[in-house]
Amino acid sequence: MSTDAPSSTRELTSTVADDGTVTLALRDAPVPAPGEREVVVRIEAAPINPSDLGMLFAAADLDSAAASADGGPAVTATLSPAALAAQQARVGTPMPVGNEGAGTVIAAGESPDAQALLGRVVGFVSGNSYAEHRTINVAQCIAMPDGTTAAQAAAPFVNPLTALGMVETMRSEGHTALVHTVGASNLGLMLNRICLADGIGLVNIVRRPEHVELLRSHGAEHVCDSSADTFRDDLTDALRATGATIAFDAIGGGDLASTLLSCMETVASEGGAFSRYGSDTHKQVYIYGGLDRGPTTLQRTFGMSWSIGGWLLTPFLARIGQDAADRLRQRVAAEITTTFASSYGMELSLADAVDPDQVRRYGRMATGDKALITPQT
Amino acid sequence: MSTDAPSSTRELTSTVADDGTVTLALRDAPVPAPGEREVVVRIEAAPINPSDLGMLFAAADLDSAAASADGGPAVTATLSPAALAAQQARVGTPMPVGNEGAGTVIAAGESPDAQALLGRVVGFVSGNSYAEHRTINVAQCIAMPDGTTAAQAAAPFVNPLTALGMVETMRSEGHTALVHTVGASNLGLMLNRICLADGIGLVNIVRRPEHVELLRSHGAEHVCDSSADTFRDDLTDALRATGATIAFDAIGGGDLASTLLSCMETVASEGGAFSRYGSDTHKQVYIYGGLDRGPTTLQRTFGMSWSIGGWLLTPFLARIGQDAADRLRQRVAAEITTTFASSYGMELSLADAVDPDQVRRYGRMATGDKALITPQT
Repeated sequence: MSTDAPSSTRELTSTVADDGTVTLALRDAPVPAPGEREVVVRIEAAPINPSDLGMLFAAADLDSAAASADGGPAVTATLSPAALAAQQARVGTPMPVGNEGAGTVIAAGESPDAQALLGRVVGFVSGNSYAEHRTINVAQCIAMPDGTTAAQAAAPFVNPLTALGMVETMRSEGHTALVHTVGASNLGLMLNRICLADGIGLVNIVRRPEHVELLRSHGAEHVCDSSADTFRDDLTDALRATGATIAFDAIGGGDLASTLLSCMETVASEGGAFSRYGSDTHKQVYIYGGLDRGPTTLQRTFGMSWSIGGWLLTPFLARIGQDAADRLRQRVAAEITTTFASSYGMELSLADAVDPDQVRRYGRMATGDKALITPQT
Repeated sequence: MSTDAPSSTRELTSTVADDGTVTLALRDAPVPAPGEREVVVRIEAAPINPSDLGMLFAAADLDSAAASADGGPAVTATLSPAALAAQQARVGTPMPVGNEGAGTVIAAGESPDAQALLGRVVGFVSGNSYAEHRTINVAQCIAMPDGTTAAQAAAPFVNPLTALGMVETMRSEGHTALVHTVGASNLGLMLNRICLADGIGLVNIVRRPEHVELLRSHGAEHVCDSSADTFRDDLTDALRATGATIAFDAIGGGDLASTLLSCMETVASEGGAFSRYGSDTHKQVYIYGGLDRGPTTLQRTFGMSWSIGGWLLTPFLARIGQDAADRLRQRVAAEITTTFASSYGMELSLADAVDPDQVRRYGRMATGDKALITPQT
């Protein structure tokens, strides 16, 4: 192995205390020497995805974020009693944060596949990417094409594989077109590019008029603005045009899932005879995020052939098997600067990430204002 | 064929009008001569199941029920605009009512299987059982053991096959015990007897303390009263004891489905390490009825491995195929007076069924107060 890897790193950890607070702190941690099939990555870029937020702040009220100290710079926020109850299993344990990132391999174990990564820019999934250096198994890495920057490679797993996973799930469950409820997000733009490339009907839902224009400028045909008075009709028209009977929803709370099923049922019932139980077209909504943490309200005006459930990347990848997952990863690497390109609204050092004002900004997860942590700055 | 069948019958039909009313009326209709594989049944008993109510009254407000006339005795009630909108496909068309019933075969077509039913008591599923006579395909009939009365045979399809279907669905989706949310109903008592006979863990939810005693007197081990302050703890204990991770819910509205998933998740998470996405135990709720027509509210405090969906008998039977469905029907006939026995709180003539006071009573679908229509009285 190479020996130029440091033995310690600065890292961010999140700790829920039994007094109902969560503290995100910058502290020191060891960097283990790489095992046979491991590499040490100098992490240069790591995105803050919506899926990172739960581990970072445990559903705390970010309006309460205040600077603190926990052996180093830190920020503390307050949890509701319900949120604290839901987080009992992690109380008192500092949790690493950051699902994915990218950087340069500066040390490697003895195995050929580890050695092959030395000096390469890799993207990786690790659950602890908000740090300067990490020791990571090669199976968690994707080697990027020459010339790819770490910033370009920083988000190679969560959004790309989720977008590809939605399309694969759509196909495997017998649907031919799909709906995505956060069309203007980085993930939404990726999904739009995949569907354009692969000839798949996609209904994009966005929450602001300017995002309609954004998506249209990216070639999207069906874009429905949920803030418009005509949303329900617009959505029904788009569902009719595409035949979409499956939706992937990152919002979770409110009545959007119910509206989706109801509009799908309207289309499915057109031209058919009356049935007391509604159409026999199966209508599916998968909730894969929770941008609205409030309850999901279902009006059940959509017959009996429907299902709502959670959708999560990791079990999806386990279901399809290693070979299929590898094919998806190879596509991500080959198209990391095109189909799977991400863009960011701010770059943050590790210290910036515990600044209360920055916390409130990136905690909003506003479309177009995604944060990229750059641990070497 | 025999020739002692009448050529006309009195029948109940339900008609939604575009003025937002629904009218249930008693009128005359022809009785077609039986085709080769058909029989004419003199209907002596037909239950009013919860699943009949939608066709009968189209979600109308039954407090508004008032006597009317539509070529004969009738009752009229008023729909909300939303209910009317959901029923557009049936506006102006008199719909037959009554999913199932039983009676004596008084005429039969030429085929051996039709002839074999002459003089026999049969249960049947037809969608038009609230009538004095009907012509029915032999495939819709179950011949009952000698000595079975029509009242005993009146409910051979909806509840028995639904109860058996729940157990089959539980097994086929990899669960080992189940929850039923209307434990004290006729269906619930059947399911309890099936689970006792077959050694399957069953968590019965009831809504009143006296129903706890009722179910215990029927040998039920796990009965949780949703009106009790301790309901959530009681339910969690019963889920832990049985390992149930699938529930069948006839209530639909409110927070019961959410509570079920949340308590299942509590049990599934016990002893495990903290996971940001919750346990990987898949938790399923099927909504098969809508005793509470209000919205279903999901708090989503149960991780990501969950699903809620509609469950309906007919597609279930289609999925399992004819041979498997026949085996279930044979079990129903053999155990119609034991496992699959129903009991009733009132008997109604066809004329009684359009009496506004009776409508309000049977429309409540109160446990223990089920109505049996006896068309020959």
